[in-house]
Amino acid sequence: MLLYERLAEQLREQIAQGALSAGERLPSIRQLAQGHGVSVATAVQACLQLEREGLAVARPRSGYFVRAAMPQPPVVRSTRRRVPGTVSNPALQDVLDMLARSDVLPLHSATPAPSLLPQAALSASLSRCLRHGQAASLDYAPPQGHLVLRRQIAQRYAQVGAAVAPDEIVITAGAMEAISLALRTVTKPGDVVVVETPTYHGILQAVAALQLKVLEVPNLPGQGIDVARLEQLLQQNTVRAAILIPNFNNPLGSLTSDADKQALLKSCARHGTVIIEDDIYGELAWSGQRPSPLRRWDKQGIVISCGSFSKILAPGLRVGWLAGSAWTEALIRAKYFSSVGCASLPQLAMADYLQRHDLERHLRRLRCTLADNAQRLHEAIARHWPVGTRASEPRGGLSLWLQLPDGGDGRALFEAALAKGIGTSPGVLFSSRGDYTDCMRLCCGLPWDERLELALKQLGQLAKRAV
Amino acid sequence: MLLYERLAEQLREQIAQGALSAGERLPSIRQLAQGHGVSVATAVQACLQLEREGLAVARPRSGYFVRAAMPQPPVVRSTRRRVPGTVSNPALQDVLDMLARSDVLPLHSATPAPSLLPQAALSASLSRCLRHGQAASLDYAPPQGHLVLRRQIAQRYAQVGAAVAPDEIVITAGAMEAISLALRTVTKPGDVVVVETPTYHGILQAVAALQLKVLEVPNLPGQGIDVARLEQLLQQNTVRAAILIPNFNNPLGSLTSDADKQALLKSCARHGTVIIEDDIYGELAWSGQRPSPLRRWDKQGIVISCGSFSKILAPGLRVGWLAGSAWTEALIRAKYFSSVGCASLPQLAMADYLQRHDLERHLRRLRCTLADNAQRLHEAIARHWPVGTRASEPRGGLSLWLQLPDGGDGRALFEAALAKGIGTSPGVLFSSRGDYTDCMRLCCGLPWDERLELALKQLGQLAKRAV
Repeated sequence: MLLYERLAEQLREQIAQGALSAGERLPSIRQLAQGHGVSVATAVQACLQLEREGLAVARPRSGYFVRAAMPQPPVVRSTRRRVPGTVSNPALQDVLDMLARSDVLPLHSATPAPSLLPQAALSASLSRCLRHGQAASLDYAPPQGHLVLRRQIAQRYAQVGAAVAPDEIVITAGAMEAISLALRTVTKPGDVVVVETPTYHGILQAVAALQLKVLEVPNLPGQGIDVARLEQLLQQNTVRAAILIPNFNNPLGSLTSDADKQALLKSCARHGTVIIEDDIYGELAWSGQRPSPLRRWDKQGIVISCGSFSKILAPGLRVGWLAGSAWTEALIRAKYFSSVGCASLPQLAMADYLQRHDLERHLRRLRCTLADNAQRLHEAIARHWPVGTRASEPRGGLSLWLQLPDGGDGRALFEAALAKGIGTSPGVLFSSRGDYTDCMRLCCGLPWDERLELALKQLGQLAKRAV
Repeated sequence: MLLYERLAEQLREQIAQGALSAGERLPSIRQLAQGHGVSVATAVQACLQLEREGLAVARPRSGYFVRAAMPQPPVVRSTRRRVPGTVSNPALQDVLDMLARSDVLPLHSATPAPSLLPQAALSASLSRCLRHGQAASLDYAPPQGHLVLRRQIAQRYAQVGAAVAPDEIVITAGAMEAISLALRTVTKPGDVVVVETPTYHGILQAVAALQLKVLEVPNLPGQGIDVARLEQLLQQNTVRAAILIPNFNNPLGSLTSDADKQALLKSCARHGTVIIEDDIYGELAWSGQRPSPLRRWDKQGIVISCGSFSKILAPGLRVGWLAGSAWTEALIRAKYFSSVGCASLPQLAMADYLQRHDLERHLRRLRCTLADNAQRLHEAIARHWPVGTRASEPRGGLSLWLQLPDGGDGRALFEAALAKGIGTSPGVLFSSRGDYTDCMRLCCGLPWDERLELALKQLGQLAKRAV
């Protein structure tokens, strides 16, 4: 046994015996080296070994911590639709109305807290645009959006191997407008579309408003889109479009593999189904390795890819985009009669920011914080929530998906939490007809502090009453 | 005969004999007083008399000018729809695509030039918001929009006698988004709606995309909406909504009278027709007297009133609104799944501007410039365009509507002008099926200079070839 293996073994025993408990800090590298009479390199190797085994977790500038036993992953037991039906879920109105009216700790959101975003740099870019291009900043943008920004976005697509020309990009008010425009452009009322289950409630609302019928394909924790089921649905129905979130499904955070992405592209191409890809979380892979958008392998031109800077730079500037494939011209026109065009200043400022700053550097820090927050959420849930609470183990994105044991009442928990000033997103929001009543989505984007720790403890106590 | 009347008579003769010709400057007040041995007050009175008679026109800081003989008003000879039909007008695509691709003198636009807008003050407001409220400026706004701005808008409604609560207002990306959201919220595909003829092409595009059927009510130069015809249409058809521009119809600039406004409200209320009011030009009455929006007399709650800061402060900030009446809740939800919400910074900056500056003072100057530009356009047309060219005499707004003599080809003129770098809006754009082929809309919002004068001369020469 090597020296570092012996040290790792000792630490493993301390954890097993409870001498070091979940969430507790391991001795520092220096303490370990001195205490065990080994070199710093050996102490580091021992800690890395524990990390590989999932027993310890590193936190930037804080050292190593004992990792909590991971909760079991949630079970998908949605009564998913195999026959096309309309979206009918009153929670899409009343729950969202209740949240909109409340000033709460925003654990219901799927956004990084302002302090995690480069606000000063963005403000500087906004001011710079006003100083050096006041007239352009305040005048109409072209309906398609400013070319200087479309070029930057095309470059980012190129970095993940997707060939997207600036002329194919349309700037939108976030990814939500991109998805809405795409849906309005490729579907007509009564058409059948596939959505994931669970999926983002904004997609369900847009689908409902357009009087589309839905089929549901499961997105599975840890696996992503169930491509065999998708193929089945496409065989048995005429499906106009599929609205998919292959990269870090909202709310699950699961990642669809490259092989599955290529398989589902083939399915959709074979059946003449347009894919509207929601890639808003693609840049937030906690591993740091940005997964490819579907668009990368889209040889037939069946994908409209939607993205945004909302989750990585500034939600309130409302700068998103779509890569419109064969529908680009129609989408530019739809953008015109939807709102003429997006505001100029945010577009020009975003382009300025991207030119001047290393986005990757900011993303590295952000992803790291999100992964760390998710780990702390897991630990707090293991400590405070009812035994048997299940939790997703996301690979990216901004959310954690929880499932209460014994069919606990997520809606009751939502309401009790709201009354205490804590916002949560009950599971029913993520289904076309009110499934996931025992589930809940929480945000990993809030900086960890005592208030948050306390809120999770309170939530745990309320959860115990809801099961 | 009083002294001033005698002087006025002499000037009248000089004009009649051509000693002073159209567009020429009258002698200054001081010259008139000295030359005719009268007091300055008498000279001023004489000029005011000529202005009252429509023979002279005052230009700020330049004195009095001989007014051109006004062209005759255009004749409405649209084959207006009496039976519901779909919008079918290829010009809505190809003409707008051609304009979008061109860098031209923007006589086709309906926007004031940047130099006529308070850009420095708006920039200062934007910077101030970034300095003192950076986090709020970059974070999501509520889907309904920031309350501080909704309050300001409600106050402006109150000033024209319309009771609109801040809670009823929804901030939108300009009036176009307000109209689109309203249409999507109150209609379903196949519904019949009334539009004006002529009307703004953005409205026609939105109606076409929603697969609505249209009936057309004439908007008459100098008179506004033909309310008797509207009543007839509502009697003979089930009409879900009417999209109306009572204040300074785009493109005509005509104003519907208060009496007619009240009459058409009664008609619509009786027949259960929702009114979507486009009041974007309401603040641009050249007389300075802001006409009332329909909303002022809306007792039954059938009006969704749409407005914007695009035409008076900054088109590129994309800040508009709607007052949603009974549909407010549904409209807020529609706003959410259309784009989550509008950008925060432009809303907060607009509110800051309105709090700190006298909007009326800016509007007075702007209206004056627009009226003056329209007069100069009239004169240039009388000088350079084919004999028999007709022109609207708008009471407000940003456009002049021209009609070529002898069924001249407005589309050919548009294309010839585009080739010379001059943007114009051919009449066909303003009809649901390509009427007004002999018409053209020009912008009154460009500051008068030699380039513009030359462009109008060139347009006149091209027009002579197009008739």
